[in-house]
Amino acid sequence: MNATQLRASLYIAGLCGIYLAAAMFLPAAIDLYYGNRDWQLFAACGFMVGSFSLACTLATRGSTPVVSKRLAFFIVNVLWALFSLVGALPLYLSPLGLTFSQSLFESISAITTTGSTVIAGLDNAAPGILFWRSLLHWMGGIGIVALGLFVLPFLRVGGMSFFKLESSDTGDKPFAKLATFTRAFLAVYVGLTLACTIAYDMTGMGHFDALNHAMATVATGGFSTHDASFGYFQSLPLMWVGTVFMTVCSLPFSIMILFAVRRRTDTLFDPQVGFFLGYLCVFSGLLGVYHHVHNDVTLPVALTHSFFNISSILSTTGFASEDYTLWGPFAVALALFATFLGGCSGSTAGGIKAYRVLIIMSVINTGLKKLLYPNAIYPVRYGRKSVDPDIVKGIFLFVSLYMAIWVAGSLILTLLGYDLLTAISASITCLSNVGPGIGHVIGPAGNFSTISDPALNVLSVLMLLGRLEVLTVLVLFLPIFWKN
Amino acid sequence: MNATQLRASLYIAGLCGIYLAAAMFLPAAIDLYYGNRDWQLFAACGFMVGSFSLACTLATRGSTPVVSKRLAFFIVNVLWALFSLVGALPLYLSPLGLTFSQSLFESISAITTTGSTVIAGLDNAAPGILFWRSLLHWMGGIGIVALGLFVLPFLRVGGMSFFKLESSDTGDKPFAKLATFTRAFLAVYVGLTLACTIAYDMTGMGHFDALNHAMATVATGGFSTHDASFGYFQSLPLMWVGTVFMTVCSLPFSIMILFAVRRRTDTLFDPQVGFFLGYLCVFSGLLGVYHHVHNDVTLPVALTHSFFNISSILSTTGFASEDYTLWGPFAVALALFATFLGGCSGSTAGGIKAYRVLIIMSVINTGLKKLLYPNAIYPVRYGRKSVDPDIVKGIFLFVSLYMAIWVAGSLILTLLGYDLLTAISASITCLSNVGPGIGHVIGPAGNFSTISDPALNVLSVLMLLGRLEVLTVLVLFLPIFWKN
Repeated sequence: MNATQLRASLYIAGLCGIYLAAAMFLPAAIDLYYGNRDWQLFAACGFMVGSFSLACTLATRGSTPVVSKRLAFFIVNVLWALFSLVGALPLYLSPLGLTFSQSLFESISAITTTGSTVIAGLDNAAPGILFWRSLLHWMGGIGIVALGLFVLPFLRVGGMSFFKLESSDTGDKPFAKLATFTRAFLAVYVGLTLACTIAYDMTGMGHFDALNHAMATVATGGFSTHDASFGYFQSLPLMWVGTVFMTVCSLPFSIMILFAVRRRTDTLFDPQVGFFLGYLCVFSGLLGVYHHVHNDVTLPVALTHSFFNISSILSTTGFASEDYTLWGPFAVALALFATFLGGCSGSTAGGIKAYRVLIIMSVINTGLKKLLYPNAIYPVRYGRKSVDPDIVKGIFLFVSLYMAIWVAGSLILTLLGYDLLTAISASITCLSNVGPGIGHVIGPAGNFSTISDPALNVLSVLMLLGRLEVLTVLVLFLPIFWKN
Repeated sequence: MNATQLRASLYIAGLCGIYLAAAMFLPAAIDLYYGNRDWQLFAACGFMVGSFSLACTLATRGSTPVVSKRLAFFIVNVLWALFSLVGALPLYLSPLGLTFSQSLFESISAITTTGSTVIAGLDNAAPGILFWRSLLHWMGGIGIVALGLFVLPFLRVGGMSFFKLESSDTGDKPFAKLATFTRAFLAVYVGLTLACTIAYDMTGMGHFDALNHAMATVATGGFSTHDASFGYFQSLPLMWVGTVFMTVCSLPFSIMILFAVRRRTDTLFDPQVGFFLGYLCVFSGLLGVYHHVHNDVTLPVALTHSFFNISSILSTTGFASEDYTLWGPFAVALALFATFLGGCSGSTAGGIKAYRVLIIMSVINTGLKKLLYPNAIYPVRYGRKSVDPDIVKGIFLFVSLYMAIWVAGSLILTLLGYDLLTAISASITCLSNVGPGIGHVIGPAGNFSTISDPALNVLSVLMLLGRLEVLTVLVLFLPIFWKN
């Protein structure tokens, strides 16, 4: 890391800061529209962040550093730190009375599209604040897909190099094509958000609720404008709309992009798509039948709730239609283990992700056969393609670290006084960017408002680690990273 | 698998059956000595099993099959199934009134050296029954070390090929040397048991208790002759004796064997030894200080209890000095996560094991560096040796399956009605062959006597899977295993 590289990082951070400052005028406008005095807060923050960012950009422009992996890792971390801090600013200064740790947690929960909230009393919160949270979700979602499609595959993080866009996808002029791809992605993302807003609106949400929930759905975030989350609306059709959009947004965005740009449908047959939809249906079906049998609920209602809540967990959104942990121990266990899994790569979903699980299953299958015939060659497969051993190692590395961080987070939370279930579920729900945990404090009927500041700081770190696929952050802690 | 191979398997099973039948006359003698009428039960079972086994051996002798990996896998499974069933026989027929599932669970818990018991009221149980349980532990321990030293490395199970005895260890005539090794191992095993018995006896246990607890300690089993386990004796010196012997028996037996046979001490520097002792001391120290601070216990007493209970969990013995889950949430979490870890390979301990964790840590370390310098070569290391990629893959395979089976076991237990904590802790305590779980039912102060038969059957399968390092059993379920 040299001075030119640091300058370039600051320049890019400054540019992003300007965009973020501009974004702050949206909640200001909304507060103005609803006649809420908070608009001044957002406008002031906007000017403050904007002028600071502009100064930063002007002071550091003109430096063109050597592009390297290290620089890429560094910039990704700097940008997420910037988003976290800037996102927290209006929350900290708002009349909600949040501590700095709470504001930072809420902001990180928003931009990592986790959706755990420290705010109790959302139903009476100012519309500007509610919209700012949704907007941070939505912008976070863009960042995550961009990271998953364009950055992490090149950094070979956790087996992601598997999803490098091939030259057959990008064509001869990669950068020109990259611009096309980015435009297509933004069009798809905005289109999905609009479609979801309209669908929610038509199924019974008010306009404002529909827009906010749509932004949280497409980003698979999970912030609601009501303490009871989707439970507030008590509407089965609304839950099905949510289920469909949450599920669609946990599929690789490349499916929709390649269809939009090149009318290609082959990516729909990416093995992780079928696998993800498969376990989503199996878990939801099992849980629905269990709920029906155990709690005397009709099967259609039980299935609606189970599909909604399971797709909410697997897509790492974190909406809840009711407290499913009261359905019985199987529901609790399934919710906990599903929190590890997550959705597909190249989507806004978090977790270990379907393609990694699928490749691990192939490793198990070939490994067992190799026990009997050590000299036979059984390649690890992902669909019809054979998987490079380096990618298998990358996945092994990722999953080991993921589990180790979950354990470490859980132990620290118990040291801070939380009971085992709260600790292990808080640790994984933040690491996987899901949202609700288990137990009466942070369960689907609770929130993080009573969690202490030190614990919130731990959970904030876990959310960022999970969102940046762990390795992207940890690589900064290697001594060799900082050597020239 | 052909007819000759099946005959040979039956022949070996018959031979082992004869040994087991002979072993039954030991508890018979003890019951006779204490004037208990149960001796007839053991004598009758001994004659029954003995004559049946003899018939089986005579009917199948003379067949010399082609030795193959498949045959080895098959025989290992057959022998453990035989031990489980024969071990359960006297328990089922005894006046304890156990169901068949309970008897089988108790027997499997004994021979896998798990130490979870379904018998409440051990303090009043007949001495023959108590001794039979300890004897099954002790014989199970021999089986496990033999498996770990001589069988699994050759079958390349879960990275165990790393511990293949090298020709430098076995010399020119492997089979002659193997006999020397086996004799040395048995001498070490018997010697440790005697030393432990004498130490327990001198620190305040009665003769009978000392013998039984020594057999359970050396096998890292954990069956006690009292419901309160070590808590019954309320003696700090006794706990330190237990701590030392449990720890020694979770170290590779090859250390003691190679010292006995060749006066070699270099195996003491096997990296897993230092690593295991390291995390044992760190966990015990942390927990001791936590117990001291939280529960107003003097530091020496707190450390005695924490060293005893942590080494009991890590050695997968499962004795308890008191209900450490009442010390606070950190104690509960540490106990749960320690249950996954286990001791060293080539010992009587179970779990994922220190050498696998150590190699995973090296994979993480090298993997992170490789993210920055993809073309540099960072070999995965175990101490100073570099580790073959196939062994890394074997470890990956093992750990993935281990976690998958834990999850599956937990989900089934919640479906059978058990709460999440009981389910996840029962599943891992059986899979890792530790003994106690968490919660008021199966926690260190509880037992498995109220667990339903279907749940016990699930847990019995988990104990066998864990004991045979998972892969040894699962390989039988591959269709290609049964193809000719």
